[in-house]
Amino acid sequence: MGNRVTITTLAGGVGAAKFIRGLVRRIPQKNLTVIVNTGDDEYFYGLHVSPDLDTVTYTLAGVVNPTTGWGRAHETFHALEALGQFYGKPWFNLGDRDLATHLYRTERLRSGLSLVEVTREIAQKLGVKARVLPMSNDRVHTHVKLRGRPPLPFQQYFVKGGARGAVEAIELRGVEAARPAQGVLEAITEATGVILAPSNPFVSLGPILALNGVREALSTVRSRVVAISPIVGGKSVKGPADAMMRGLGHEVSPRGVARLYQNLIGVLILDQVDRHYADSIEQLGIKPVIADTIMATPAKAARLADVVLAAIDG
Amino acid sequence: MGNRVTITTLAGGVGAAKFIRGLVRRIPQKNLTVIVNTGDDEYFYGLHVSPDLDTVTYTLAGVVNPTTGWGRAHETFHALEALGQFYGKPWFNLGDRDLATHLYRTERLRSGLSLVEVTREIAQKLGVKARVLPMSNDRVHTHVKLRGRPPLPFQQYFVKGGARGAVEAIELRGVEAARPAQGVLEAITEATGVILAPSNPFVSLGPILALNGVREALSTVRSRVVAISPIVGGKSVKGPADAMMRGLGHEVSPRGVARLYQNLIGVLILDQVDRHYADSIEQLGIKPVIADTIMATPAKAARLADVVLAAIDG
Repeated sequence: MGNRVTITTLAGGVGAAKFIRGLVRRIPQKNLTVIVNTGDDEYFYGLHVSPDLDTVTYTLAGVVNPTTGWGRAHETFHALEALGQFYGKPWFNLGDRDLATHLYRTERLRSGLSLVEVTREIAQKLGVKARVLPMSNDRVHTHVKLRGRPPLPFQQYFVKGGARGAVEAIELRGVEAARPAQGVLEAITEATGVILAPSNPFVSLGPILALNGVREALSTVRSRVVAISPIVGGKSVKGPADAMMRGLGHEVSPRGVARLYQNLIGVLILDQVDRHYADSIEQLGIKPVIADTIMATPAKAARLADVVLAAIDG
Repeated sequence: MGNRVTITTLAGGVGAAKFIRGLVRRIPQKNLTVIVNTGDDEYFYGLHVSPDLDTVTYTLAGVVNPTTGWGRAHETFHALEALGQFYGKPWFNLGDRDLATHLYRTERLRSGLSLVEVTREIAQKLGVKARVLPMSNDRVHTHVKLRGRPPLPFQQYFVKGGARGAVEAIELRGVEAARPAQGVLEAITEATGVILAPSNPFVSLGPILALNGVREALSTVRSRVVAISPIVGGKSVKGPADAMMRGLGHEVSPRGVARLYQNLIGVLILDQVDRHYADSIEQLGIKPVIADTIMATPAKAARLADVVLAAIDG
């Protein structure tokens, strides 16, 4: 594809970042906008923590921890250990270098900047050339309702609770009142292509899709919107997407994903092990493209990006 | 001295902590109240940093860095290094473990606790049995006026500027309106003895002494108030006390110190090298006690504490 191609990717955290790492081997960062979920944002120790924004930003900056996929490389956890003396045993991992990001974000937000502005500053200071765009400046707070329990804030379900339990419902608190951040709708409608990263459809892309105007924007440019199935061989590649699909009454397959994204996407990339779903996906009005979607290495992620970019071009 | 003796010490940072480390080898921590200067408090990265409170608390908790006398032992500075990516090169050293204290203090203050309450919590959680009492819950912000320059906040003068320059004036901004914290005046009037630690008379003890009612409280119990001269052999043992005395027109000697504390103290401990000042100090109505005041080891600090406690007892 030419140098003037512009790509917008809707992203959650680690799964999306893995794909983005491959994508920016194929297109210049400056041609990429990443619209990032903020429904997982949480306050820890008085700090505003944006896990998905940081995972995407650290990945684009080349400072992400390559083993975990989140947090910074060469990290230590001495502050967290000392915080345990004051707050009790911590359950959310915040590294020492990572803390600097949360300190900066918190301090700049308090001084009056918006999350979009602070995120731009953080990305620039870390040398990121892509545009990392929080989905909204307004607070959306994802909660997960497990059977027999009151709804839990996402990080309590995911990190503290280890994503265990039968999911009955997802609540995107605040999403009705939240406005997409300035630039979000334009980034969707004006891009050469839009990619729905292989992120959790409910808690990662769900909050972005639920924002006022986002579904409409996607549907108007549907033919150039490509999603990558996060479900491969009946399971999620990572995280609780499969358990959520099951709990919420969806088929745990690329076809189930296609139904969730129906009328929003023109193409669904599904793994070769799921090729038997191709026909039924086509019947939903979505073009199925079969590929190797397991991004075991950055080179494999880049080859997946080739497939996605070709699908946009087609 | 008996077990029921209670001691109140007025303290700045490192010099005071060195003495306190010896003192608590001689009296139980629970019998000790330390009233600590907060005029040096500063905001860094949105965090409320109280250098003198922390130096005293870390010392009493046994977690202070034994080499520097401030900060925590076995410390790393990874967060600070990363903060440099956002804010530019840092000039104030905040260690990773130390950051936990500032995070806790800041978060608890924001949630509505007073500095006295938060300081008590921090001390308790670090296992300190002594009472560490900030001089005030109200903001006093010490500034130092150097020749030909506008007044600088203390930490900018002391840490960033390396305490260089000719001091023309000390401004204790906010001190007129500040009230001594609850318990400060009682801790002075009701203690068996009161000790003015060998801290800087202007920027460490000065803010405490300038609080409404503190001088009066000391003068009423004068006979049991003992100061240790921070000036030995015409120089301060540590820090810019000598330069400040000179700049502000005082004699740089224990006699100069005695004049500063006249009518507030009954006894001044001066170093053996300054024994020739004894008579003239006595003429100021202050009992001179000659001792080895250089606290090269904790054992030597404890021996100095013996001298001080004996002076109170006498």
